[in-house]
Amino acid sequence: MTKSYSPEVGTRYFEDYPLGAAFEFGPVSVTEAEIVAFARQFDPQPIHTDPEAAAAGPFGGLIASGWHTAGLMMRLLASNFLSPAASIASPGVDELRWRAPVRPGDQLRIRVRITEATPSRSKPDRGMIRSAIEVINQHDTVVMSLSAMNLMRCRPGC
Amino acid sequence: MTKSYSPEVGTRYFEDYPLGAAFEFGPVSVTEAEIVAFARQFDPQPIHTDPEAAAAGPFGGLIASGWHTAGLMMRLLASNFLSPAASIASPGVDELRWRAPVRPGDQLRIRVRITEATPSRSKPDRGMIRSAIEVINQHDTVVMSLSAMNLMRCRPGC
Repeated sequence: MTKSYSPEVGTRYFEDYPLGAAFEFGPVSVTEAEIVAFARQFDPQPIHTDPEAAAAGPFGGLIASGWHTAGLMMRLLASNFLSPAASIASPGVDELRWRAPVRPGDQLRIRVRITEATPSRSKPDRGMIRSAIEVINQHDTVVMSLSAMNLMRCRPGC
Repeated sequence: MTKSYSPEVGTRYFEDYPLGAAFEFGPVSVTEAEIVAFARQFDPQPIHTDPEAAAAGPFGGLIASGWHTAGLMMRLLASNFLSPAASIASPGVDELRWRAPVRPGDQLRIRVRITEATPSRSKPDRGMIRSAIEVINQHDTVVMSLSAMNLMRCRPGC
């Protein structure tokens, strides 16, 4: 089930990320120029930087760096999901998979489902959430998936 | 053990990524302006975009988005480790951990150790390598670690 957030992102704390909650955010689009610019800086492989070479490659055209897709996912998370008041840090992510190519003009959205929400044993002012995240394109194909951790502050006074 | 690559990156194939081989590449530096620019585009949280707000935050100053650190790692991999002739795709990464903050002025290098090198059963022209990668700063602190997969072509005619 997808639902809107309550309360507003800016006033959200650990308690507002309950186990089982599910959300959807986006879309965000990506252009050929953005794919090439990202890859020149961070992933300079012809399949991401050279449309002609990429056309002859295994995906039949230019595709986004997987790390670019991860960045677009992060933008949707940061803008819609992670409260600045609550978010302390992310210890990391697991099982990050690039399942299908991301191509110029694609429109990506994310589905987020909270799979763990564990209060800290040692520090009562915080808790850890784990989320199953899917990045989905305009054809409803899952292009990337992962499990992400976020350390969150509890509501002040709790 | 760290050693230099042989043969040259452009002529490297699956057979040239043997189990147990270890490499080190870098450094690459990161500035405050780059940290802020990346984060405004992909991870707009105050700890990555606002030096004053970040100074009052949990890390006592501005830190790079973890996805920015991943991008810098990828740049070192793409420029030094992955042969364009061999590299088909990456299915994904596991156990990505952000272990310590990356701050403006940091100099990052990567250590790469090949932990699996498995010829494909169904397609004799390719194989999968898995690498344990650490991103290390100028103080020899591991700031990020992960296990990455790369699908590689075998040498033509093998």
